[in-house]
Amino acid sequence: MNRFSVRPLHEVTRTLANVASRRQSPDLVLTGARILSTYTERFLDDREIWISEGRIAAIKPAGTCFRTDGVPIYDTEGGILAPGLVDPHIHIESSMMTACAYAEGALLNGTTTIFCDSHEIGNVCDRAGIEWMLADAREAPLNIFLTIPSTIPATNATLETAGGDLTPEKVGAIFDAWPEAIALGEKMDFVPVCMSDTRSHEIIAESLKRGRPVSGHIYGREFVAAYAASGVTDTHEAIDRDIADDFLEAGIWIFLRGGPPTTPWHSLPEAIKTVTELGASHKRVCVCTDDRDADDLFLFGLDWVTRQAVVAGIDPLQAWSMGSLHPATRYGMDGEFGALGHSRRADIVLLNDELEVRNTWYGGALAVEDGKVTPLLDEQLSDERYQYPSAAYNTVTFEDELNLLPVLPDAACTINVIRAELPGIITLHRQISLSTGLDSWEDLFSKHDLCFVSVVERHGKTGEVACGLLQNLGLKSGAVASSVGHDAHNIIVAGTNESDMHMALSEIKANNGGVVVVDRGVVKARLALPIAGLISEKRAPIVAEETSALKAAWGESGCILPYMGFNLIPLSVIPEIRITDKGLVTVPEMEIVPLVT
Amino acid sequence: MNRFSVRPLHEVTRTLANVASRRQSPDLVLTGARILSTYTERFLDDREIWISEGRIAAIKPAGTCFRTDGVPIYDTEGGILAPGLVDPHIHIESSMMTACAYAEGALLNGTTTIFCDSHEIGNVCDRAGIEWMLADAREAPLNIFLTIPSTIPATNATLETAGGDLTPEKVGAIFDAWPEAIALGEKMDFVPVCMSDTRSHEIIAESLKRGRPVSGHIYGREFVAAYAASGVTDTHEAIDRDIADDFLEAGIWIFLRGGPPTTPWHSLPEAIKTVTELGASHKRVCVCTDDRDADDLFLFGLDWVTRQAVVAGIDPLQAWSMGSLHPATRYGMDGEFGALGHSRRADIVLLNDELEVRNTWYGGALAVEDGKVTPLLDEQLSDERYQYPSAAYNTVTFEDELNLLPVLPDAACTINVIRAELPGIITLHRQISLSTGLDSWEDLFSKHDLCFVSVVERHGKTGEVACGLLQNLGLKSGAVASSVGHDAHNIIVAGTNESDMHMALSEIKANNGGVVVVDRGVVKARLALPIAGLISEKRAPIVAEETSALKAAWGESGCILPYMGFNLIPLSVIPEIRITDKGLVTVPEMEIVPLVT
Repeated sequence: MNRFSVRPLHEVTRTLANVASRRQSPDLVLTGARILSTYTERFLDDREIWISEGRIAAIKPAGTCFRTDGVPIYDTEGGILAPGLVDPHIHIESSMMTACAYAEGALLNGTTTIFCDSHEIGNVCDRAGIEWMLADAREAPLNIFLTIPSTIPATNATLETAGGDLTPEKVGAIFDAWPEAIALGEKMDFVPVCMSDTRSHEIIAESLKRGRPVSGHIYGREFVAAYAASGVTDTHEAIDRDIADDFLEAGIWIFLRGGPPTTPWHSLPEAIKTVTELGASHKRVCVCTDDRDADDLFLFGLDWVTRQAVVAGIDPLQAWSMGSLHPATRYGMDGEFGALGHSRRADIVLLNDELEVRNTWYGGALAVEDGKVTPLLDEQLSDERYQYPSAAYNTVTFEDELNLLPVLPDAACTINVIRAELPGIITLHRQISLSTGLDSWEDLFSKHDLCFVSVVERHGKTGEVACGLLQNLGLKSGAVASSVGHDAHNIIVAGTNESDMHMALSEIKANNGGVVVVDRGVVKARLALPIAGLISEKRAPIVAEETSALKAAWGESGCILPYMGFNLIPLSVIPEIRITDKGLVTVPEMEIVPLVT
Repeated sequence: MNRFSVRPLHEVTRTLANVASRRQSPDLVLTGARILSTYTERFLDDREIWISEGRIAAIKPAGTCFRTDGVPIYDTEGGILAPGLVDPHIHIESSMMTACAYAEGALLNGTTTIFCDSHEIGNVCDRAGIEWMLADAREAPLNIFLTIPSTIPATNATLETAGGDLTPEKVGAIFDAWPEAIALGEKMDFVPVCMSDTRSHEIIAESLKRGRPVSGHIYGREFVAAYAASGVTDTHEAIDRDIADDFLEAGIWIFLRGGPPTTPWHSLPEAIKTVTELGASHKRVCVCTDDRDADDLFLFGLDWVTRQAVVAGIDPLQAWSMGSLHPATRYGMDGEFGALGHSRRADIVLLNDELEVRNTWYGGALAVEDGKVTPLLDEQLSDERYQYPSAAYNTVTFEDELNLLPVLPDAACTINVIRAELPGIITLHRQISLSTGLDSWEDLFSKHDLCFVSVVERHGKTGEVACGLLQNLGLKSGAVASSVGHDAHNIIVAGTNESDMHMALSEIKANNGGVVVVDRGVVKARLALPIAGLISEKRAPIVAEETSALKAAWGESGCILPYMGFNLIPLSVIPEIRITDKGLVTVPEMEIVPLVT
């Protein structure tokens, strides 16, 4: 069961015409249902769906099918049949799962098609990593399309060492080699784009000249005009009502992002006010997940996001359309999915009146029933998953004997410090003046709420380590470390002492990547991410469980900055100050600054 | 000034970003306008459009542009700026104009993009004719895309002799040779499609396997399910509320066709009730013209159709969107036109409050001002039009000495007669019994309101002529003839006497095609159509004038069946009985029947 289990439409139109004309029996009938029509935004009562060749041959009044003996009929008992959801923008790697594993969580959420941007594995493994994930995606029981990562590296080799360097030529080569690469992924360097940077526009051109769209990522109303003028036609970063409105008027589709309400990613409730308060048509509005931790995938899937649109005041039929037909239309693929149209893939969900997913049929095959994975899907996920090549397991390279502590002078000095701020996106640039130089780390730490933070290059390129000080992490003792240090994914380690920091690094190295919490020589939690140092080999429920355990240990260590915010500490494109393997970076200036001034 | 005068977006994104960022001056500013936003379906007050490289760099509050000396500024004085209209389905040949000539009428109507189906020239000249028209289209000041004719011939060589035979292989070859061929045109043989006919589905497959959509043409609610199951995703034949509703639910975009209200083509007012009465969302509803006589093009353009949607109860903003953004979205080209988005082509119209077109900018160039063609456009249309090759002028071939009269026996007999019925689509099959055989034609004609009708094969293939009798044409004396005899476009001639019929044929032959009214040896009106026997060489206003004169003479001859209905007499796919070069065809049975039984 994968995307190719359903034959291309052009091979089966004659069969579908025969079934729809009642000259041939379908393979399956779903009957006694209310149809949620995303085409007309109405419910249609007492209908049935005739399925043949994994596609919808016709939707007709219940009980009217021509059906030979033995053809199965599934009585939905008045439930709602709706199209499977279509997620227009996600990063699979954020779930720390393979594409095959991710499919399990997606199908449980009623999501049957996703447009992913494999920006993270691309930053580690360049084009090869993106292509491994595409091969993985082809074996997954999910329609997975790629929006090609467009901004690798996030900055440049002066500011950080990344594993990948996705040139315009490589972007073009991926388009030409992989038909499922259907757009350019979020062009994150929106300031250079607006400033007409040559390489940024050359990458955009690779998509436009093939007639493919360009996805966006942008903050700040002052940048909208030039960004849209550059050919970008969607964004998932509509964080409030007014910028959402600007996007729509400039010709940019908006993907309203929903996420756990305690995180800053849950921008849907504000952005949707362009519709509910400013009266914009909803027809170019979609919903998306963007990033989702493995455990959150089971609680805050795209179905949940869609229901949040209802909570925010959108009509339920319009909301489901924003999660299915609209994303399909945005990518010009509404002839294949996004609605219960004749000839479309039979990617169908059964909902209760609260729009909660009970069943999911993927290409006409029952993959989820009563909220649980069916034996059919379970067997596939156990046996038929893609195996990444050995190179994918060999991406964490650094020396054992590293100095992880900064050096401070014995004289008066001023130290540049990174202050973590909740909810965990922006950092603040603080300076601490020492009138007589360093007395002891303990005194300094307790007085200013500091700990050590280091970034270790792990791509085997430079072997460099940068050491600094982090304020307001909250860590009481021990160390935390991660090989998911956005976007270059070098190792970030923070700690109160060098010994635990070394132990955390050793754990990560031993697992070829991962996230770890260590205290006084004891590993409190460990999530192994051996594939590219980003991805677990395990199935979705196990990764979810391990993620929960990690988060619990993370909280017990005292860290108030969430795990995701910690991973962003090296991301040298978000203000105000960051640390990469090259040192401290002040973002507005895009400069390396010394620890001590 | 043609489609290629505006460079591809990927070549100019840096310039557009510079202009939108106010670092570079635009080429033109349209200021002081209300913007009709098809994205959000709202009016935006007091705005200006910055145009650069023939594209929209940005839309901003009026008076905010960075502009160097000498950059022109056009004050719209509070008028409405809206996107140029997009016609999702038209046949250029119906206007009897070349593509270059058609552009003049289109731009006057505020139409800047059309999706044409060159079904008629394809029926005469096969692939070559379609490609001549594509070459013509490339020189026209209009964005012209092709939906490849899909049903040539309309039936088969037993029932009629056509010039073209567009096999699946030829359809595929056109797709591969012409990037502007972006869909399969209306698949008119909907019954064979629903019956899973092999050739019909092979032609559909040529489009689907290239990821291209398939356009439709279908009557009868009983066929909708199987037709949609065959992969068809639009139709312009939504003739009433209920079938329009069926189409939408089956996943078919509907193009509401508007035409002169006295004709049967004006189906918009009924079909739109799926929205206004049944509550379907308008988001997959478009408007189109389909066919338009040259004179009608100046009165009943797509702008008129759009306003008719308003008359029918649609909000003006939604109506304009149905005529611009929705068709562009249907074809996945909303990144290029259909709305006033940044980076889109500057195909812009200036409207008054009644949505009447005052100005049209095509790719940023002012082509229509105050309802009149500008000198810029006028010069191009006079000097730079495409010249069809000599083969296009050599498509009317038949012998001079033809017998045009039927032969009736001297004994009792029953004659199969075609009865014309207003408004001119359906014909009725009548039988007239003669108890003693033919007495005189005059007596028979006056008693039964008959005249002669013959179809003369003109493709130089068989030289055949079929002779019959036509009831209720109304012709008092003389003859009428046309080389536009749908769909094979053999010559149809009707008359009260053989001499005038011969004269009419001679006129058509002398002009390499045309339509003519003759009475007692005098040519009353003549419209020369030398290109493929379908198309005039002249400019739009002249063809319009000649068409008006022809219609006047047509009426004066006594004909009550309009010219267009007469041209459909040979179309052997519309009930009940037709005449082709092969003889009388009964449509339900698709059989040749003899004149006398």
